[in-house]
Parts: sequence; C-alpha cells; structure tokens
Amino acid sequence: MVNNKRIVLIGAGNVATHLGMALQAKGCEIVQVYSRTEESASELAERLQVPYTISLVEVSVDADLYIVAVKDAVLQDVIPSLVKGREDALFVHTAGSISMDVWKTSARRYGVLYPMQTFSKLRKVDFTSVSFFVEASGREELVLLKELAMSLSPKVYEANSEQRRYLHLAAVFACNFTNHMYALSASLLEKQGLPFDAMLPLIDETARKVHELPPAQAQTGPAIRRDKNVMDKHLSMLLEEPSMKEIYEKISKNIQEL
Amino acid sequence: MVNNKRIVLIGAGNVATHLGMALQAKGCEIVQVYSRTEESASELAERLQVPYTISLVEVSVDADLYIVAVKDAVLQDVIPSLVKGREDALFVHTAGSISMDVWKTSARRYGVLYPMQTFSKLRKVDFTSVSFFVEASGREELVLLKELAMSLSPKVYEANSEQRRYLHLAAVFACNFTNHMYALSASLLEKQGLPFDAMLPLIDETARKVHELPPAQAQTGPAIRRDKNVMDKHLSMLLEEPSMKEIYEKISKNIQEL
Repeated sequence: MVNNKRIVLIGAGNVATHLGMALQAKGCEIVQVYSRTEESASELAERLQVPYTISLVEVSVDADLYIVAVKDAVLQDVIPSLVKGREDALFVHTAGSISMDVWKTSARRYGVLYPMQTFSKLRKVDFTSVSFFVEASGREELVLLKELAMSLSPKVYEANSEQRRYLHLAAVFACNFTNHMYALSASLLEKQGLPFDAMLPLIDETARKVHELPPAQAQTGPAIRRDKNVMDKHLSMLLEEPSMKEIYEKISKNIQEL
Repeated sequence: MVNNKRIVLIGAGNVATHLGMALQAKGCEIVQVYSRTEESASELAERLQVPYTISLVEVSVDADLYIVAVKDAVLQDVIPSLVKGREDALFVHTAGSISMDVWKTSARRYGVLYPMQTFSKLRKVDFTSVSFFVEASGREELVLLKELAMSLSPKVYEANSEQRRYLHLAAVFACNFTNHMYALSASLLEKQGLPFDAMLPLIDETARKVHELPPAQAQTGPAIRRDKNVMDKHLSMLLEEPSMKEIYEKISKNIQEL
C-alpha cells in the first residue's frame, strides 16, 4: 500500500508544495521537508504541519521515499549527500527534462514521478486531471510509483527518459508559450481599454476544440487562409512592438508551412 | 422584436453557416443565402431549407437585414451592388478587421456584428459563450444589432472600429497562435509515439488559469525561471526543426522581456 509510506520532500517550491499537500490528503505520511532556504522550508512545513530542515545531513534517514522537486541545476548537487546513509530508500525526482540516469551512480532504487502540469502558488491544483509520467530502476519501484501516482490521478503513463524530455519540451509549447500568447493578447487589449475577460470564451473554445480535432485541423484565421490583406494590416499595427511583430511573422509563416 | 426580421446571408462560409443556423434556431427568418460558388451556396441553403442564389442581382430586395460574412478581400467588391436597390435595409459585416466605414459611401443604415470566435465546419458552436462586438451607423441600428446579438449570447459589447481591429489582432494571438502552439506540441509528441491526449489536461489548466490570474502572472516554465540549462537542452533537441527552434527562441526571449 502506498499510504503507509513515509515520505520526505526535498524542495519546497510549487511542485513540492502541491504534490506534498495532495499526497498528505491521500493519507501518505509526509515526515519532513527540506529546502535550502529557511523561509520556503518553514512555509511548506507549516502548511503540512511537519518538521523541516535546511541541512541535508539532518534529513530523516528512515523514510521510504524521498521526492526531490528542486531546480534542475540543483538536483545534481543534492543527490550524493541525500543518498548517503539512506541507501535502502527509493529516490525520485519530478523534473520532466532530467534523465533518470542522474541517480545511477549514487542510488540503488530510484525513479521519476513527473506531473505534467503548470503549478502556481496562488492556484489550487486538481490532481485528478493531471497526467503523471513514471519511470523506475526496477519492476518493484515502478509498481510503487504507479500506485502512488494513481492514488492522485487516473492519468498515469509510463515514459522513458528520452520520451519524457520530449514531453517536457512539448509542454513548454502547449502551456508556457500558449500562456504567453494570452499575455500578448492581454497587453493589446489593455492598450485599447478592452477587458481581457471578453477574450476568455475564445480561449476556452480554442482549448476545447483540440479535444475533438487535431490542432492542425482546428486552425483558423488569416495565416491559414493566406489572407495577406489582413496579415499586412496586423503587421502595420505592430510597428511599435518589434518583438510582437516578429513573433506574428514567424508563427504565421510556420502555420502556413505546417 | 428581432425575431420578426427577414434576414439574407451574404456568404456561406463558417461564420455565415454557424450564425445563420443559430439565428434561425432563435426564430429569425432567413429568407435567402448568397454565395459566389454554387457548392457552398447550395450546401448552406439546404441546411437552412431556404432558397439560394449565386448572383448578387438576384438577392432578395425586401429583407430587413443583410449579414455579410465573406472573405475580407471580397467585401469591398460586394457592397455597391448589394446595397443598390435595397437602400432602406440594414447592412452589417462580421469581420473583426474591417472598419464600419467600408459601408459609408454606399449605404444609409449599416453596422458591424463581430462574433469573436473560432468557427470550424466540423464543430458545433455554442453561441451562448461567444463574445459579440457591435457598432452601428445610428442609435436605432445599434439597438437592433444589440438585440440580435443578445438573442444569441449574454456577452455583447459595443466596440468602435479602432477597438475592433485590435480585438481581432488580439484574437489571432489568443486563438490562432495558441492553436499553433498546440499543433507544434502535437507534432513533437507524435514523433515520440506519445498520445496528444496526455497533453489535454495541461492545455485545459493553462486556459482555466487565466480566468483567475492575469496571464503574465500565470506564467511558469524555463523561460520565466531563466533556466538556461533547460532552455539550452530544448534548443539542442530542435536542431533539426529550424523554424520551431526559432519560435522557441523568440517567444522565450519575449517572455523574459515582458
């Protein structure tokens, strides 16, 4: 059973926070939080009502599972000190872009638990609609990680490290870059004194459409229609926004190429 | 009352089709469909069970309202022949990017009815969640167009031609360019044998988030974190996709500038 596992959270950012709270709500025992900075360590520890530490050597040695959700650049540095003295435990990281092999030379039992979602401190996450991708060093570890993920969401997939780094890249396009398109749209509206709220029905329908049609088939607008007239007008409206103008040109061209 | 108006549809594309069907369902009398091509004219006419014509001179002269939903480049050519002999009627176009003034020299009573939505032949449109923007040559015409729009949706706004062309540009970013980000994401996943369906929860959450947070505040991912490590890895994965690589670079840079 998953919910008798003793878990330590390494990291106290958005992913650690949302994941920790969701696992605790499912009955898992979060025994401790580690973060390099006292402020974030204590904040998450208080939300979970568990102890915290800012020193790796003080991380509890008798947990079953260590979930590492730290900045990608920090992960490599954390691993050796974290594994040392805790060799029987299972270690996982949550980063989409980092190979499972990062654990290979230090740990015996390891894996990846990648929740493909956009986490903001200010917004609650409904994990039941999050896709999880898992990978593990062995059969037993894979089963445990799958169980853990399935306790939070029905959408659990196996993916190897190569697939996962493409998933992460694909997510940057579908989420971060999409959100930036919203942001550019919002800035245009703001300059005209128009409410961004008026754009929400269109944003929602654009997202809903690709549940039914492949995105390439769902495309509409001046670029796919090759409506040079409208596109030229738009470009002339962006003369004072050279970066937006360039983005408009590149994406329109790419829409026509696809 | 709106639903005793006799309406002619000029154009038989996606906008004319969806709008015509929705208005008819609300009790408006669609008396005729015009399109330059017999195929599209007859197709829409059959769906609405009304007559059609492919000649402007044969367009009914006794309608109250002519809704023109044709390609932007065609609109200018259609106007003089359409208005001639029908001077008492109200004429509107549905294009976001075209000024109301396009009617000025020909018609006496005119306006714009711009449904800001993405219309695909293959997908039903729920007009109750479409933002409509209206503008008219006079008070009486404005009231009529507002009533007409409000019979379909509660989200009806007034916008002048200058605002509307920015709305249309903003919609290209929030809808067409967003959809292209989905398409690029889908093509990356396809190459790895991963299902695009796994991306839908993230796409939905990205759209839902901006109902609560301004897009600039909702941003996550490597660009906003200035995670050069991850971004360099992503760029190296796109070496064989120069257009996607360029789009990745431009948008990431712009996210950091905003």
